[in-house]
Amino acid sequence: MKLLRVGPAGNERPVVLDASGDLRDIGEPDIDGAFLASGGLARVRAALEAGRLPVVDGEGLRIGAPVARPGKIVCIGLNFSDHAAESGAAVPEEPVVFMKAANTVVGPYDEVLVPRRSEKTDWEVELAVVIGGTARYLDSREAALEVIAGYAISNDVSEREFQLERGGQWDKGKSCETFNPLGPWLVTADEVGDPQDLAMRLWVNGELRQDGNSKNMIFDVAEIVRYLSWFMVLEPGDVINTGTPAGVALGLPGQPYLRPGDVMELEIDGLGRQRQTVGRG
Amino acid sequence: MKLLRVGPAGNERPVVLDASGDLRDIGEPDIDGAFLASGGLARVRAALEAGRLPVVDGEGLRIGAPVARPGKIVCIGLNFSDHAAESGAAVPEEPVVFMKAANTVVGPYDEVLVPRRSEKTDWEVELAVVIGGTARYLDSREAALEVIAGYAISNDVSEREFQLERGGQWDKGKSCETFNPLGPWLVTADEVGDPQDLAMRLWVNGELRQDGNSKNMIFDVAEIVRYLSWFMVLEPGDVINTGTPAGVALGLPGQPYLRPGDVMELEIDGLGRQRQTVGRG
Repeated sequence: MKLLRVGPAGNERPVVLDASGDLRDIGEPDIDGAFLASGGLARVRAALEAGRLPVVDGEGLRIGAPVARPGKIVCIGLNFSDHAAESGAAVPEEPVVFMKAANTVVGPYDEVLVPRRSEKTDWEVELAVVIGGTARYLDSREAALEVIAGYAISNDVSEREFQLERGGQWDKGKSCETFNPLGPWLVTADEVGDPQDLAMRLWVNGELRQDGNSKNMIFDVAEIVRYLSWFMVLEPGDVINTGTPAGVALGLPGQPYLRPGDVMELEIDGLGRQRQTVGRG
Repeated sequence: MKLLRVGPAGNERPVVLDASGDLRDIGEPDIDGAFLASGGLARVRAALEAGRLPVVDGEGLRIGAPVARPGKIVCIGLNFSDHAAESGAAVPEEPVVFMKAANTVVGPYDEVLVPRRSEKTDWEVELAVVIGGTARYLDSREAALEVIAGYAISNDVSEREFQLERGGQWDKGKSCETFNPLGPWLVTADEVGDPQDLAMRLWVNGELRQDGNSKNMIFDVAEIVRYLSWFMVLEPGDVINTGTPAGVALGLPGQPYLRPGDVMELEIDGLGRQRQTVGRG
């Protein structure tokens, strides 16, 4: 299933995209931690198959992030060897973990704002994992895959000066307003199939800048979720950004950081497409 | 005013401590971002002064964290020069910023769990700032002080191996289950007065380990809030842990990290007292 949230920012309505391309009301208050924790995906699936969900006219509606109010966004750094190399960093021996404020989440077509006093705002196409169950000290890859509700595209927008040149800890460059476009869909895990064989691409102003594949992750999705569960409790609605392949501005000749008016487009196999125009904070 | 939340974990009831030491129901759903954003403190103050709030029998009730579901917990690292020195770190030129998962928050008397496979769980008494308004690109210290709802004691529990020896970024050692006892009270800013003249103390098993004062912060509360607002949007209900003075296990002879059965007690002038027994994760 592909679930999404449509409508004005802060007032989105949860819907499901059916096989014929129609949007259908899911009959639930929202797509969030409470929905996922209470078996919401199974309820929607049953209601959809039974033909009980009414069609919604989505014509012209904004698409919001497919998950409301994540409890946390956990990010994995340097998880592609080509990106570690372009960043001048060693390939990590275990996952590098940092966090991003959850109020950075915006819709997949919303504007991304270059922060004031920023000269080095950068892009990162990433496979986002949406957690559907509680994860604490998981003992296997299988247990890790069981707590995954689904996947989405994430743009882990980053300010490199704030992240790397302003006195310690990356979070400072990861949490600016609008820095996490998410969506368009939450695609359920069953529909995605193997999360380690998805092409991931990002264009800026029509030029292909990132052209990777999730098969090249150093730590794969199952290992990331298992590993994280030994350091924190993952909860339904949490989002994990699993790292970006090479091709970010930081690593390109001339470091062509984002400027107002630039357009980013992102794509991951089976997860749809994003498009953001860059504005000023 | 001193606000608090009493009752079983996950089912706390919001109350205010009146001048005679009684607990009174505040007549609001909870103490959280929505309450603070909508002028909840002023409503409670007016109702309290008008004698409209009924007394609650708090006898024997657990005390929870005074703020429900913070949107994020932002932490300032190395913000006391004596703690920077004991950590072997330079005094920072601008605030060091990291984050802590918000689901680490527990009550001030709840058990703190040593994570599995942990040998280096450590304590940190800190002055927590609770945000009461939205902060974005604040241009003055005065504007920063205006978005502060109040203060509380925070124990920024930390696993030093996870934080420092496991491959990058401190967040990995800051987000374990139960790692942020908060409270007992949210003390409103007017009642605290000057936040830069508060003694801060922490004992382990009755032995005084940290004995600092908020006057020795490198970056003070107003500067921290102003500064952070240039890197992220602070929202009502967010919590900022403003850093710890010297005396953590990491910096003590023999590094006496926490073991199950240990007892931590914390105190900050005007903000009350905490006490946690250490258990196993």
